[in-house]
Parts: sequence; structure tokens; C-alpha cells
Amino acid sequence: MNTDIPFHEITEKTGIPSARLKDGLDRGAIRVTEEGGMNALLFKKSLMDLEAGTVIYTGDEVEVIRGFPKIRRTLLLSPTLMEHFRDSVAVEEKMNGYNVRITRLSSGDTVAITRGGHVCPFTTRKALELMDLDGFFSDHADLVVCGEMVGRDNPYVSQDYPEVGPLGFRVFDLREKNTNRPLPIKEKRDLLESYGLPPVCLFGIYPVEDAAEEVADIIRTLGKEGREGVVMKDPSMDLPPLKYTSSQAHARELAYAFSYPFDFGRPFFFSRVIREGFQAYELDESDEETLERAHRLGEAIIYPMLERIKAIADGEAAYEDTVIDVDDMETAEDFIRHLVHLGVSATLADYRDGKATVRRFYQATTDRINNYLEGGLY
Amino acid sequence: MNTDIPFHEITEKTGIPSARLKDGLDRGAIRVTEEGGMNALLFKKSLMDLEAGTVIYTGDEVEVIRGFPKIRRTLLLSPTLMEHFRDSVAVEEKMNGYNVRITRLSSGDTVAITRGGHVCPFTTRKALELMDLDGFFSDHADLVVCGEMVGRDNPYVSQDYPEVGPLGFRVFDLREKNTNRPLPIKEKRDLLESYGLPPVCLFGIYPVEDAAEEVADIIRTLGKEGREGVVMKDPSMDLPPLKYTSSQAHARELAYAFSYPFDFGRPFFFSRVIREGFQAYELDESDEETLERAHRLGEAIIYPMLERIKAIADGEAAYEDTVIDVDDMETAEDFIRHLVHLGVSATLADYRDGKATVRRFYQATTDRINNYLEGGLY
Repeated sequence: MNTDIPFHEITEKTGIPSARLKDGLDRGAIRVTEEGGMNALLFKKSLMDLEAGTVIYTGDEVEVIRGFPKIRRTLLLSPTLMEHFRDSVAVEEKMNGYNVRITRLSSGDTVAITRGGHVCPFTTRKALELMDLDGFFSDHADLVVCGEMVGRDNPYVSQDYPEVGPLGFRVFDLREKNTNRPLPIKEKRDLLESYGLPPVCLFGIYPVEDAAEEVADIIRTLGKEGREGVVMKDPSMDLPPLKYTSSQAHARELAYAFSYPFDFGRPFFFSRVIREGFQAYELDESDEETLERAHRLGEAIIYPMLERIKAIADGEAAYEDTVIDVDDMETAEDFIRHLVHLGVSATLADYRDGKATVRRFYQATTDRINNYLEGGLY
Repeated sequence: MNTDIPFHEITEKTGIPSARLKDGLDRGAIRVTEEGGMNALLFKKSLMDLEAGTVIYTGDEVEVIRGFPKIRRTLLLSPTLMEHFRDSVAVEEKMNGYNVRITRLSSGDTVAITRGGHVCPFTTRKALELMDLDGFFSDHADLVVCGEMVGRDNPYVSQDYPEVGPLGFRVFDLREKNTNRPLPIKEKRDLLESYGLPPVCLFGIYPVEDAAEEVADIIRTLGKEGREGVVMKDPSMDLPPLKYTSSQAHARELAYAFSYPFDFGRPFFFSRVIREGFQAYELDESDEETLERAHRLGEAIIYPMLERIKAIADGEAAYEDTVIDVDDMETAEDFIRHLVHLGVSATLADYRDGKATVRRFYQATTDRINNYLEGGLY
């Protein structure tokens, strides 16, 4: 099978020697797959410069859609922003949805790729419904549109954003194929505007010495509105961006995790709690604020877990329903197959008039809580 | 070195074939050591029937001091107690100190062994000061006295128990050398009483169908007094015991862990939070109680972490001081050497009139918090 792979061209485009690629294939770090109807290599793990989630299409032309780089987090705004950035800092909203890369391939097809590198049929269709990308890709076929799919009717991460309606897309980066080089903030926003594509909110570009204080204010406001946080960027995009999130976002994520404690609880918990400790240190302006933070944290852990135990004691399995908009039942079933292919335990719980209820099961939570309720030992 | 080990006699006493012992030695699961001035094998990991913490003395006579068995925890009292026990359940207090096995060796020496299997010089001396064990061991050299060293002036786990004074010992099991068979509850308590040795508190022996409710009441009372919990035992000791702890104990342990978040936070957290979820489900009699529980949990996490960050920002290292009673400076230094030998980062911070201040350093907490305070990324 490896003999069909155009190693020479891939090496030319990526600088990765054939031997490293072959080794990656042998180890399972790279998989041969079909994404969006074309043969491709999918990078499950990073390899040299190529990020995990990179997809290399190996059709008539080799095209490299780089993985979206992991954005590092800061626990403190001061002095970190001063240490990390140069003259100024662009502060954009970090929204709570899922990361999508949209690209037009040499075949002429436009596909939407999720974080792991899979073309998602639902996302592809919705992205094309939500945005008119034809003009943009006709002129800029070398660019990848990176953004967040957000909203309530979201099969991966459902959070309501009133301004987007049931489902929306917001662009945060335009990046070059092959190199993954992002356009500078101004260039990106001008280009998006000229093609009528929706950018994430830019709160402002601040002198680096004011940034910590500005971000603190923005975060307090976002938190009160139940919104997630910010990504801070070098306006030229020469430096890696940093992320910072609100206490309410941490609490919401913990509440979600402890709704399914034996599926999500353990890895989720520690880092979110650490963030709260540092944020209490830096942002709390009164004892009252710290007390509220502590209570929010405790409530976010205890109540969802208690509700889950009660529900399972009442004979319910642990599951999560999301309603998504689809054209027909077949599209809904197609999406379920996509989820199952990704290893998610999901079924179509209901379909009516273009509304599909996607049900995900959290088996570890169901099984373990049942076991304890029946007298099992920890 | 292995040639000095009396494999044949060990196999005879333990049933473990020489080959398995040699393999354990090769893997480092068993170490050749000197404990209490005598050659010994120390089991770092369990091997066949022998628990981790087992010490086999290999002097003139082979003596096997078995490791103290891990006591399993239940998250719920009902139906677990009914499932696990037979007719009745003895409920003893679980105190918050450290586990000690006291034994008289064939050499005539009495030694106190901590959980991991090391003879602790401080514990050995204190055990002999706190209890007159001569009569007991003269008559019962085949028994091991298993108990908890508790109290404020405790170099391992310091918690005040008013009834014991600054430091005290409470016996919870009498177990046979070699077999680790525990005496039944009544036999144990009678024997302890006749030799004037202090048992842990026995709350009662309850019919199994009443036990869950009785324990719930006991736990509520213990929690209010800031005490840890209970161990529930089959009166004949034919079944393995179970433990169950109070919400206040969980909060206290979390507060301790988040005082040194990067040394203790991660492994500590999850299981304690899970316990709180199940306890809320089973024990909370009102919404108010659940709210209190949630707030206690949040406060136990946030405040100690916040205080630690502040202290480190003020230039302090993360450390913990315990004051212990010693005869002289040399004994204090001897104990510090013992801690360092166990891999603890400790120094003698102060010595005055028989009071030694033992200081333990939590380097990961100091280093990582300093790194974030200086602008390091998470």
C-alpha cells in the first residue's frame, strides 16, 4: 500500500525525509486514510514540524493541510504578557465550540476538517451553508480558513451564543497550506471583511504594558456573560498566541466533566482547578469574590455528580443529547457513522422534520456508578 | 549478596518459591536492607500472598512481618454493608495518623515498622514510651501489634486528638507473624485490655441490617468533630474490613493537598471528590447540607492554593513544619536522616529543649509556582 504514496513529493513539500514518513506509518503515528473522498495521510501524532491533525492529500497533487497548532495557556496575565509579547497584543475572543479548518482542495472540493484531521460531513455542509466561501477560495486557494463552529445546535460542543443563532462559524486565523504561516491580524481581518466572512471578536490591540489590565477587565465581563475567554496574539503573528479563560468557563467545564465523572473527571480536573487558584490570586478584588469563586467551584463539582448518581439510581443510562439541523434522515445517519468511525459511542435517538437528536453514551459513568449503587467497592 | 539469603527457610515459611524471590530481588520488587539493626528483605511491591511493606528478617531465625493489608473503601453504606458482611458489623474508629506495626524480634528487640516496611527510630522509641509492651510480647511474641500513631506532635501526619495528648498510639489489629491472620474483635479487645494496651474506639457491633444507618449517624458526628471516619469489620475477622470517611476528612485532605498543589494535587483529588458525590447522594438530608458540602469542597481547594501562591510570591519556599518531642539533638538528627533515607526532603529547622522542628520541603510546588509568577507558561 505504501508504494502508492508519493514520498518524493511529500518530502519536497514538507522537508520530512521518506524514511521518517515510513517509520511514522509503521508506528501508526501516520495513517493512510480517505478523507473527503480523496486518499490522504493523517498525522495522529506530530512529526518533525508537522502538527498532529495534519492531513496530506495524495491525489493528483500533494496538498498539505497542517494541523492547528496547540495554543499554550498562561495562568497569570502579569508579568506573562510582558514577558511573552513585544510592543502590542491583539486580544480576540476564544469561543467555546470546536476547531475547524476549511480548505479548498485541488480537486475543487471544499472540506471542513476537525481538530484530529478528519473531514466531518456535517461541518462541511454547515460551513458551506453558513458562509459563501466561493469568492474567497477562488482568489486564495492557498489559504486555510481556521475557525470555531459554535452554537447550541452543535453536535460536538454545544454552548449558546445569542449573536450566532442556533449554529455559527467564526474565523480566527487564515493560514497558508504547507507552511501553516498565519496572516497578520490586520491583513486577516481586512481579507475576511472584503469577502464577507465572519471573524471572531477583536476586543482591541493594546500596548503590551496595558494588556494585562485590559484582559483582566475583558475576562471579568466575558465571565459574567458565561463566555469562555481570550486568545492573545502578536499582531504580526510572529510569536505564538496564548490563551486565558474565565472562572465561569472553568466551572462550566468541570460541571460537564462531573456530569460524566468516570468518563471525564480525572484528566479534566487538575488543570482547571490550578487555573482558578492563580486567577484568584491575580484577579479577585475582594474576599467576597474569592468566596464566590470557591463556592462556584465546589458547586460545579458536587451538583452534576449528585444529579448523575440520582439519574442512574433511577435506572437511566448516562447519555448526552444534542439536536442538530440536517437535510434528511440519511444525512443524520451519515453523521452518526462518522462519530462511530471516530470511536464515539453514539446513536440517532430521534429524527423529525430535519431535526436529528444525536445521543452519546458515557458507558464508564453508567457502569461504575451502577456498580457502586449495587454494593461494589471503590 | 543473594547467597547469604536463607531462601529455603523463607520458602518454608511463606510458600514463595526461591525462583520467585530471586526474580523479585532482580526486579527491585524486593530489596536487601538492614531494618532495626538486622538483615532483612523489604517488599516494595506485593509478591504472591505477601503484601507490599512485608519485612522478612533473615538473622538467626527467619521472621516474616507481613505488610498491613490495604483496606478497601466503600462509596456507599447501603447496600454495600449488606452485600459485604454477614450477620453483624463491628464499627471502629479510623484515626488520621500513620500506620505502625510493632513487633518483638527473635533478637529480643522491639521495633516499630511504618507502612512501607522501614523501622522508624522515632516511632520505635515513642511506642515504647507510650505503652508498656513487655508483658504482652513475653506472652505473645508471635503477634504483631498494628495501630495508628496519632496526635499533633506527629512527624508524619499531624492532627490533634484531644484524648491522646500531644502524641498517642491506638491499636486496631493484632495479627500473627507469618500468616497475617488477625484476631477476632472480641479476642483482640480482651487481650489488649488485659495488658493495658489502648484500642481504637469501638462504636458498637451492629446487626448488618442496621449497620448502614448506624454508621451514617456515627460519620455525621465524627465529621462535625473534624474526625476521620470508620473501619467496618466482620467480628470474626474472616472477611476483609471496609473503610468509610467523613466529608470533613475529605475536605481537610484536599486542603492539605492544595497547599502543595504541584506535589500532591493531582493524584489526591479525584477519589476524594468522587467520595463526596456519593456521600451527598446517600447522607445529605437537606438541600442545605448539600450546599454546605459543595462550599466546603470549593473552599478546601481554593483557599490553601491561594495562600500558597501568595506566600511564594512573598519569597517563601513551600515547606511544612512539625514539632516533635525528642530526648536530644542527636535523636532529632537521627530522625531527619531516617526521613532523608526514605526520600523525603527534610531538615532540622530548630532544636530547643527536647523540641525539634522538622521541616519538609515541597520543591515542585515552590518551583512551579515561582515559574508561573515569573511569566512561565502552563
